[in-house]
Amino acid sequence: MSLLAVGTVAFDDIQTPYGHAKMAIGGAATYFSLAASYLTSEVRLVSVIGDDFPEETLNLMQGKGIDLQGLQKIEGGKSFFWAGRYHQDMNGRDTLDTQLNVLADFNPILPESYRTTPYVMLGNLTPGVQKQVLDQLEGQPNLIGMDTMNFWMDAALDELKEVIKRVDVLIINDEEARQLSGEYALVKAAAHIQKMGPRFLVIKKGEHGALLFEGDRMFYAPALPLAEVFDPTGAGDTFAGGFMGYISRTEDTSFENMKRAVIYGSAMASICVEKFSIERLKQLSLSQIEDRIQRFVDLVQFEQK
Amino acid sequence: MSLLAVGTVAFDDIQTPYGHAKMAIGGAATYFSLAASYLTSEVRLVSVIGDDFPEETLNLMQGKGIDLQGLQKIEGGKSFFWAGRYHQDMNGRDTLDTQLNVLADFNPILPESYRTTPYVMLGNLTPGVQKQVLDQLEGQPNLIGMDTMNFWMDAALDELKEVIKRVDVLIINDEEARQLSGEYALVKAAAHIQKMGPRFLVIKKGEHGALLFEGDRMFYAPALPLAEVFDPTGAGDTFAGGFMGYISRTEDTSFENMKRAVIYGSAMASICVEKFSIERLKQLSLSQIEDRIQRFVDLVQFEQK
Repeated sequence: MSLLAVGTVAFDDIQTPYGHAKMAIGGAATYFSLAASYLTSEVRLVSVIGDDFPEETLNLMQGKGIDLQGLQKIEGGKSFFWAGRYHQDMNGRDTLDTQLNVLADFNPILPESYRTTPYVMLGNLTPGVQKQVLDQLEGQPNLIGMDTMNFWMDAALDELKEVIKRVDVLIINDEEARQLSGEYALVKAAAHIQKMGPRFLVIKKGEHGALLFEGDRMFYAPALPLAEVFDPTGAGDTFAGGFMGYISRTEDTSFENMKRAVIYGSAMASICVEKFSIERLKQLSLSQIEDRIQRFVDLVQFEQK
Repeated sequence: MSLLAVGTVAFDDIQTPYGHAKMAIGGAATYFSLAASYLTSEVRLVSVIGDDFPEETLNLMQGKGIDLQGLQKIEGGKSFFWAGRYHQDMNGRDTLDTQLNVLADFNPILPESYRTTPYVMLGNLTPGVQKQVLDQLEGQPNLIGMDTMNFWMDAALDELKEVIKRVDVLIINDEEARQLSGEYALVKAAAHIQKMGPRFLVIKKGEHGALLFEGDRMFYAPALPLAEVFDPTGAGDTFAGGFMGYISRTEDTSFENMKRAVIYGSAMASICVEKFSIERLKQLSLSQIEDRIQRFVDLVQFEQK
């Protein structure tokens, strides 16, 4: 089924211990929609770029069945830009520069054909923009996912909570879950956040995997231990793309199927970090994805006696 | 089958955000042997205490089938003492005091009946003492496990490597694996350490679970996300006790069975941290342990489609 993705399409400047990528393709919705495109039939993008964004990348996305009707291009504008440097151990990073550019005045407009999309992902944007998107939907989607960040918890908590109340899955990291709930233990944080509205909660723990919660059920998927992580940028968005893409393909929101979605998200993320920027997501085969899923199976499955 | 445990039996002074336990029962071999006693028939302890150590605890251990023939009691001596304070988030701790006391002159002597024990665990002690124990064994045990710490990598690396070469499973934490190998990525660290001798390597990652390596095979068990962790002291030793206890009971060192051993270790550790000191390990039923194993199964198992 089709999947609507709202979020940034951007340029990144990334420094890791393995190198420096200047004006690399970035943006949460870029990673998300590319990852999802391998799993589900039609991904519909809502975002904004300047006229500096490469046609080649747009062509790549269209070639993967990503619908760009909802991608606004501002003539004379510059695309969103983020620059960051990862620490030696890759577990932390410093933001060196953020230029909102065309994102500053982003007014998301859903093309008519997008308004009844059954699966929706609200990428990390101002809660106001996320709300604008929800308000344009017609009928109730099967599942709405949402990402956010600490910044909005500090700057726009009430508005953020209004959006959270309207979604089905919140996908955030451990720090964000702790800040949003005021609880340190993730089990407690999860219980607190689920009372805010979302039926499901996914807490991403970076190299330590991801947790899925529904009511008092809990599922854990590790991150795949890799010999080399070249660039963690976009791993979280790629996770979300694999996760929502799998749900959108299977049209099944049972806990059992959501578990598999977490594994698909983790698998896609583990592939993403093996090269800089979106390089690894440009050309994947289904068998490469299935092989990666198998590595997760081998990593965690055991037989009880 | 029987299992030989060499390590400390001690007093701890523990401060966590939940309270302060003074002169609490501690020591790696205490946690290890109690945890293992629930899984295998006979645990044989080699350690040293002063005359200050409570009879009550010794009786408890004997009641659980722990053989104390190898526990030396030094009249007029004081037992090993450690004091530490955990950070607010429980992920770090500061050592406030360490008093070796009777451990300073520990000369481990294996009673005759211990020398052919088929399963052996060398707790974290000076490599010299670990070697003395190995030298007293007659015949080749089925499996020798070993723990160590950063301190010995700094202070006695050559001697440490000699001992590592002679064991089958090294059980250390992620920081120790990184220091011992000089590699940050745990996959690379594991490859490096296995070349030092041990067929198996277990890397404990605290609240982030544990990894098992054999050749190029890898298995991961999460730590159980808990609402409250009252006292992490002894969790690693309890893990080792569950792990070695399970292997000793099943007498099977296939990778498939070692996976289950990691799950048993993780389950025992998750129980241990629910109360201060050895409190939770004093009286457990097999059904409590099986219930905990089931929680791990529920946490990680998923069906492939």
